[in-house]
Amino acid sequence: MHNRFAFIAGEIGSWNVVGIAAVRGDGVQSAQRIAVLPAGEAAASMPAVWRLDGVISNVRYATGGELSNLRSVQAPLGRTQADCAALIPIRKTPAWWQLAQDERRALFEEASHHTAIGLDYLPAIARQLYHARDLGEPFDFLTWFEYAAEHADAFEALVARLRATPEWTFVEREVDIRLARV
Amino acid sequence: MHNRFAFIAGEIGSWNVVGIAAVRGDGVQSAQRIAVLPAGEAAASMPAVWRLDGVISNVRYATGGELSNLRSVQAPLGRTQADCAALIPIRKTPAWWQLAQDERRALFEEASHHTAIGLDYLPAIARQLYHARDLGEPFDFLTWFEYAAEHADAFEALVARLRATPEWTFVEREVDIRLARV
Repeated sequence: MHNRFAFIAGEIGSWNVVGIAAVRGDGVQSAQRIAVLPAGEAAASMPAVWRLDGVISNVRYATGGELSNLRSVQAPLGRTQADCAALIPIRKTPAWWQLAQDERRALFEEASHHTAIGLDYLPAIARQLYHARDLGEPFDFLTWFEYAAEHADAFEALVARLRATPEWTFVEREVDIRLARV
Repeated sequence: MHNRFAFIAGEIGSWNVVGIAAVRGDGVQSAQRIAVLPAGEAAASMPAVWRLDGVISNVRYATGGELSNLRSVQAPLGRTQADCAALIPIRKTPAWWQLAQDERRALFEEASHHTAIGLDYLPAIARQLYHARDLGEPFDFLTWFEYAAEHADAFEALVARLRATPEWTFVEREVDIRLARV
């Protein structure tokens, strides 16, 4: 099924759950492991404490110049040394979604430097964004990060900087799930 | 199910199919009527020759100023005098989707005047865009138009102007389905 992936919390999967924190709004139920699978029959038949779906889609804000910068330094998922991961599902307020494109862009980058902040931590911290809002999911985005244990402090700094931005005042629900490769 | 709608071609529904034309790429099977329903159990149980789903989502390109202009003149769907409709599913090329946001915006509006062209035909021709690409559907968008018979010529002009734009060189599949209210 195209670029749609399922994050399935339960007793199987490649990632051990190290901790789950409700950063804003409701949390999610605890579980032992998380499996990341292409959405499809295998995902549908897997027993789940909960399941979140998201789709890899086109970029929504980055300019050509920003994309070139990102592509020149970004790291792929699945690096063997990247034993740590974080799944951070996020939902933004209705007010955010009612903004025009240029208004959201200005908050995202000119006011909050979202892409620029992420760039500071590349290639150490690999990122993948999954879109979920148009799927009718409880979150708008599933953000996914992979990094080696030696970059754990850098990851905390990245997350702290993003949460301190004007963009984050539009986040109404956020759960922070930390993972370790099985 | 949130803002997701199903366009179901078959023998029932509020719209008689007047004609179906494959504008670019593969067409769709002919049918007598089209029903437009919120996605859900009723839609899932309806017999269908084919079904296309789309979701009403946030705007992707319009600026604050453009949105104000649109909102000040746009007409709602469902006007009793609007007996004519068109469902025009569209798929754009992979090259379009690989462009950065500012590059797509420049093609969409500065080069092609997409919003400005639509504005010329408001409030006569009501429009609603449904997003389908992230749902894994065969089209990226389902575009929907409603207008009174007296504005049929204006509608042809609107469609012709959009098809002549640089943006349309990125359209790889387009089907034009004309409808009359039952």
